[in-house]
Amino acid sequence: MTQFALDPYNRNCPTRRLLDRIGDRWTVLIVGALGDGPRRFGEISRRVDGVSQKMLTQTLRGLERDGLVRRTVYAEMPPRVEYALTPVGETLQEPLRALEDWAREHMGGVQDARESYDVLAGSAA
Amino acid sequence: MTQFALDPYNRNCPTRRLLDRIGDRWTVLIVGALGDGPRRFGEISRRVDGVSQKMLTQTLRGLERDGLVRRTVYAEMPPRVEYALTPVGETLQEPLRALEDWAREHMGGVQDARESYDVLAGSAA
Repeated sequence: MTQFALDPYNRNCPTRRLLDRIGDRWTVLIVGALGDGPRRFGEISRRVDGVSQKMLTQTLRGLERDGLVRRTVYAEMPPRVEYALTPVGETLQEPLRALEDWAREHMGGVQDARESYDVLAGSAA
Repeated sequence: MTQFALDPYNRNCPTRRLLDRIGDRWTVLIVGALGDGPRRFGEISRRVDGVSQKMLTQTLRGLERDGLVRRTVYAEMPPRVEYALTPVGETLQEPLRALEDWAREHMGGVQDARESYDVLAGSAA
């Protein structure tokens, strides 16, 4: 595959679906939760408040399949399972952290904009 | 609202839903399409190959409500309607462009990882 052919503006390009994976809220939060090192399922689950078991399992499996997260089973009793970012997964941290920071920084402005919009929309109705 | 209270890891924080908006594939592509200046609906629609009229309308309206896109109607015959990034919307360009670049750069590696994963999953079944 040549890099030149990749264009998410083209509906058939696989990068468009990859954007769904990496921009997904759960991916942003899970990759962030793994930013300080390997974590167990329960630890991620507690950090990402409100994620369902199903969604966490599904997102971790997708990230593992994409080569962004590595799942390691330690042969202990009971077996210990840890999730960690792969080197490629680590390259995602910076852009996703930028998204998270943007959301924190601009939430207030966005809420003000929504209120103004809704007042105008209400008065026009 | 104090900035300190904002935390997308908390399920009730509005930043979590804001992450959905900004990480959405259509937002990434539409904000990118407006990167060079104002565009008409039809121009955006052609640039973002495969977006439905409904999805484009809905995403533009959401971005307008959030204060990220401005819709301007010019009193011509026929009326001309243009969409442009607001100054706040422009601050989104850099993080979203980073996501787009990441997807282009790592698509090949992700596809290789998927193939390996699927071979292993197949042999384990």
